[in-house]
Amino acid sequence: METANIIFQPSGRRGKISKNKSLLEAARELGENIESLCGGQGSCGKCRVLVAEGSYPKYGVVSSSNHLSGWKKAEARYIDKKEKKRGSRLACCASVQGDALIFVPEESMSSKQVVSKRPRPCMIDYDPIVKKYFLKLKPPTNSDVQGDLERLLKALKQQHGLEDLGCDTDMMHSCDIDLLRSLPTRLREQNWEVSVSIWMEREIIRILPGKVSDNYGIAIDIGTTTVVASLVHLNATKILDTQYISNPQIKYGEDVISRINYHSRNPGGLQQMSTDIIEALNRMIEALLYSTWPQDTDRTPEAFDYRKGQHRCRKSKGEFLCLVPEDIEDVTIVGNTIMHHILLNIDPKHVALAPFPPVVQKSLNIKAKSMGLNICPSAYVHLLPNEAGFVGADNVAVLMAEAPYKNDQIQLIIDIGTNGELVLGNKERLLSTSCATGPAFEGAEITFGMRASPGAIERIAIDPETHEVVYKVVGHDAWSNYVRPGDLKVRGICGSGIMDLLAELYRSGIITKSGSFQQNQKSSRFRFNTDTKLREFVIAWAGETAIGKDITITQKDVRQIQLAKAAIYTGCKLLMREWGTERVDVVKIAGGFGIHVDPVKTLIMGMIPDCDPHQIIPIGNAAGAGALGTLLNRELRAEADWVARMVEYVDLASLKDFKTEFIEALHIPHKKDPFPHLASILSSEILFQ
Amino acid sequence: METANIIFQPSGRRGKISKNKSLLEAARELGENIESLCGGQGSCGKCRVLVAEGSYPKYGVVSSSNHLSGWKKAEARYIDKKEKKRGSRLACCASVQGDALIFVPEESMSSKQVVSKRPRPCMIDYDPIVKKYFLKLKPPTNSDVQGDLERLLKALKQQHGLEDLGCDTDMMHSCDIDLLRSLPTRLREQNWEVSVSIWMEREIIRILPGKVSDNYGIAIDIGTTTVVASLVHLNATKILDTQYISNPQIKYGEDVISRINYHSRNPGGLQQMSTDIIEALNRMIEALLYSTWPQDTDRTPEAFDYRKGQHRCRKSKGEFLCLVPEDIEDVTIVGNTIMHHILLNIDPKHVALAPFPPVVQKSLNIKAKSMGLNICPSAYVHLLPNEAGFVGADNVAVLMAEAPYKNDQIQLIIDIGTNGELVLGNKERLLSTSCATGPAFEGAEITFGMRASPGAIERIAIDPETHEVVYKVVGHDAWSNYVRPGDLKVRGICGSGIMDLLAELYRSGIITKSGSFQQNQKSSRFRFNTDTKLREFVIAWAGETAIGKDITITQKDVRQIQLAKAAIYTGCKLLMREWGTERVDVVKIAGGFGIHVDPVKTLIMGMIPDCDPHQIIPIGNAAGAGALGTLLNRELRAEADWVARMVEYVDLASLKDFKTEFIEALHIPHKKDPFPHLASILSSEILFQ
Repeated sequence: METANIIFQPSGRRGKISKNKSLLEAARELGENIESLCGGQGSCGKCRVLVAEGSYPKYGVVSSSNHLSGWKKAEARYIDKKEKKRGSRLACCASVQGDALIFVPEESMSSKQVVSKRPRPCMIDYDPIVKKYFLKLKPPTNSDVQGDLERLLKALKQQHGLEDLGCDTDMMHSCDIDLLRSLPTRLREQNWEVSVSIWMEREIIRILPGKVSDNYGIAIDIGTTTVVASLVHLNATKILDTQYISNPQIKYGEDVISRINYHSRNPGGLQQMSTDIIEALNRMIEALLYSTWPQDTDRTPEAFDYRKGQHRCRKSKGEFLCLVPEDIEDVTIVGNTIMHHILLNIDPKHVALAPFPPVVQKSLNIKAKSMGLNICPSAYVHLLPNEAGFVGADNVAVLMAEAPYKNDQIQLIIDIGTNGELVLGNKERLLSTSCATGPAFEGAEITFGMRASPGAIERIAIDPETHEVVYKVVGHDAWSNYVRPGDLKVRGICGSGIMDLLAELYRSGIITKSGSFQQNQKSSRFRFNTDTKLREFVIAWAGETAIGKDITITQKDVRQIQLAKAAIYTGCKLLMREWGTERVDVVKIAGGFGIHVDPVKTLIMGMIPDCDPHQIIPIGNAAGAGALGTLLNRELRAEADWVARMVEYVDLASLKDFKTEFIEALHIPHKKDPFPHLASILSSEILFQ
Repeated sequence: METANIIFQPSGRRGKISKNKSLLEAARELGENIESLCGGQGSCGKCRVLVAEGSYPKYGVVSSSNHLSGWKKAEARYIDKKEKKRGSRLACCASVQGDALIFVPEESMSSKQVVSKRPRPCMIDYDPIVKKYFLKLKPPTNSDVQGDLERLLKALKQQHGLEDLGCDTDMMHSCDIDLLRSLPTRLREQNWEVSVSIWMEREIIRILPGKVSDNYGIAIDIGTTTVVASLVHLNATKILDTQYISNPQIKYGEDVISRINYHSRNPGGLQQMSTDIIEALNRMIEALLYSTWPQDTDRTPEAFDYRKGQHRCRKSKGEFLCLVPEDIEDVTIVGNTIMHHILLNIDPKHVALAPFPPVVQKSLNIKAKSMGLNICPSAYVHLLPNEAGFVGADNVAVLMAEAPYKNDQIQLIIDIGTNGELVLGNKERLLSTSCATGPAFEGAEITFGMRASPGAIERIAIDPETHEVVYKVVGHDAWSNYVRPGDLKVRGICGSGIMDLLAELYRSGIITKSGSFQQNQKSSRFRFNTDTKLREFVIAWAGETAIGKDITITQKDVRQIQLAKAAIYTGCKLLMREWGTERVDVVKIAGGFGIHVDPVKTLIMGMIPDCDPHQIIPIGNAAGAGALGTLLNRELRAEADWVARMVEYVDLASLKDFKTEFIEALHIPHKKDPFPHLASILSSEILFQ
């Protein structure tokens, strides 16, 4: 039977699929989770996917929408022309005719990501950059015929002492032209009583009739793989909702370098990636706003557009705020330098060429309307500063959340994402660097890797005596040995499970110090797969899974994890050498899965330098916490600019023994370095849970 | 034979036209001048006109493109789809089927306006708001990896001492996002040597590779009837070219009130008028740029767009600059408050309601790209401040050019346009007001009124004994009595001719003090027209004209001129009373035709208060001169904001005896006021030229 190569993103699941099978069937076969309420009848529209166009040498495929069966009538009901042009299809309607790379958007996944990338709570003084002022104006009379804007500015001066709004200067930055257009109507709408939102005591960004005092903002963390956005009620310092999606740019490449390459090879590629992320952010913003609406509200685009015109926070229908886009008056965005540049449609080409200069480092305030973000159009979007080409605003945000520059202790902060970012130092000196970990720790590039959604193994322990495996699954508190086989409906292994693996495989003697499977194995879980020609170890038997086949870890998977951990270890070690220290006081591990990290196992696998295990602290999504902090407190924005300039970037690749160190760091742990804390741990008996 | 009402704008020529005649034939019949190189064969595309859609009660017509014959193939060659949708037709192809209001764009007129609205030369210190700085940057190295923007800002600080560009603050206004996008390429294009254009020592608005020092700007005066734009080589303080067009909004109404009414009655009307003027300004800018190109250059849109991409002033092809839109880095705009608001798409509705508050008074700096002006996209367009609802930025510009606020003498400055604007005062106090003169002095609303183009009578003298008429025609130095009849090819009477008329008709006894034709007339030039049922006086016989019929002035025309001059006189008188003076030292008369104004005749007709005729000074297009001044000197912009706030606006209609005064001012001159200078003039013998 003729087959074709089908690859699903962002999961990375791939395989040969018989021609004429639908994409939905292909997804089931490959363990990809695509929503399908109607069971593939083309009548629910939930299984929408995107077909990538072009050549993807990495996968050895040329993907094209022509490699799928023709457009069906049923699809037109759920996919508009614009979406169709972008390659949208219903997975149940499109059948395989040739190779294809398929992107499954967040909303089409049957299991939503549940691992908390929600920013850690942090103590921040409330001092937002946008403040509201209530004004009662005197209407114009024959003896007082000043302009509407002048009247407003005078009242702001007299009633609130705001002088710097351009009323006495020759300059006009008091409000933008679109706002000026709405001014006469808004002033007269509620009898010359208005609430005015002012950005930085400098510019009016919104005028509401009547008295309104609540402020809302959104903090966004754009990761190479995952995007997180939190809606915050600023006055109440309260997170109302958090949304997570896969970065839609994954279809152009999994890491930053492959996205830069995509841009270099495709004219218009940069614009395309920029538009994709802006559209994704707008969908997230919409979802955040909807979360404040009652469940039964009409959420069609028409209803939404209609309410957009209303410019008050309506406390109707009980507890519901019914926020509309205009209510969002502030947004902070963090991300690595490449995500930052691509978002702004700034060419990141030179960032990838030594000595890797970014186009801009300082923080930016950009009008929402000129970015195309669907919030209050005259509001500013704040992008935190970049430290360097490969250490971006996301790392600055981590620093804001952890503030090592205020501390005497030498801290090592590791932010593990598709790109690993490291900071080392204290209040005297801070060094930073980045290392290409690849997406292994995010569940991609691993045979049964998956996102942290229900069915994902998030913790693993292996008995050194029997090589029996127990695991814990996302969404369940009990370990597998306390549950009936099959009840956990395992589907794959997510990031924190993958982080456990290397330590457990090594500690139990299944793999050697160099990462190869031992010749003599104790259990039938080890085997040689004749299909893939790879040695593998079974983590969960088919009967325990929801996908009907054994979930294994292959020799290739082990190598991927080794590469990732070695990259981080090398970065840590070389940073310490540059800083001039042989030890660190504290190791903080950030990242979306960070809260699940087992400090001891990071030591055993040799990902971090030797350290008291009690001083290895998982800090979760610290970048998100930093974005949130700068949303709540304007002083932190100035601090961020200062910190970004203070941190010294170290280019690892330019250091002379980088390669040697990296190769030795592939060992579990590093081949030569002393690990006194690790030694005492390995000799103790308390490891097996 | 069935006929339809056809009205041409901006000339106002109208009449009944037999159905099935082409618009070109209609134009010829009504004396409208439409270009037609091919003689109506549909093969030159020069006779393009716009058909208005909608009801025009003033003319008693409902105009519709359906009232013309169907679209012809020939038209598609010259009119694209967008233009077609806006109502464009070729006058030779469209034939009359019903009533229609037709707008003839400047470029389709067979005779171009030649009266100089070119700003008077004025002495201005060169201190532009945009300055260029040349920089040699050090390329990034491993030990210096700062961002491209940071590198640029640091060099500006080190090499030119520019510190306020946001590099050391938490704020980002150093350049906008579009410019940031071009930054990496531009820096590397000529080996890290760039010229940087900086606005107000505050924001980078353009980056050019290599060394460039020339600056160019455009000063624009948007009149209700006429728009003037001058291209200026700023460093050389030299006007390179000036363009004039009729304001395309004329089709929506001739004066500001009818345009506000059009907006109130038509949803989208404001946007439409705004788009029309922006498009017209872009066409003018294009024409100004083309004037710097060699004649034989390819001027197709394609060629233009192509060169747009090139960002240097190329001194190729001898003397030619070949300026492109990006070379224009500064624009100043003046206009009355309504033109100002409509241009910015700001609702002018409230400006027309007592107490007539404008939406904004202060000057505005608006990004060219957000206005849609096709110049350097990151540049700012400067709109001068408005004094009040009916005294706008154009009057502020007049004040900038004449500076009465620096003088001891009491000056009366009259700016005659479709709206008359008056300023009275000296350095102690300035009063301003506006009066609705109507467009009579601009040649509209007068039977044979026309713009100041070839064939227009611009000066008139009538022999008191014989009532014989001599006149002078635009473009000819000799008076009609020194030329063979018919050689002057008269087509109508323009503004300055109309201003002569009332004085001459009165002084020669053809009309009475009250403006009625005398019962007993000396010449056969006076007659009763049985068609129009109006008494009229022949200015030029059919044989002297190019239109084959007598050019006359009717009783109705005389009334129109009386209304216009009475409005101005009443304004002057009431302002003097408010100021507390019975005399003025100087009267300055501004306006496009101002340079042709005969001071004595303005006295005789009773348009201005009594004054020494040597102190009546025509000052030409002073508003344009002010726009030019503020383009060349940034200090004048601050001064303009100060002056706009200082001037006190007087609302004439709210003064108690406005009506009485107006009625008495209809007389030639005012019925009761003393005119000592006028009396001595009328008794002298030196009047007849």
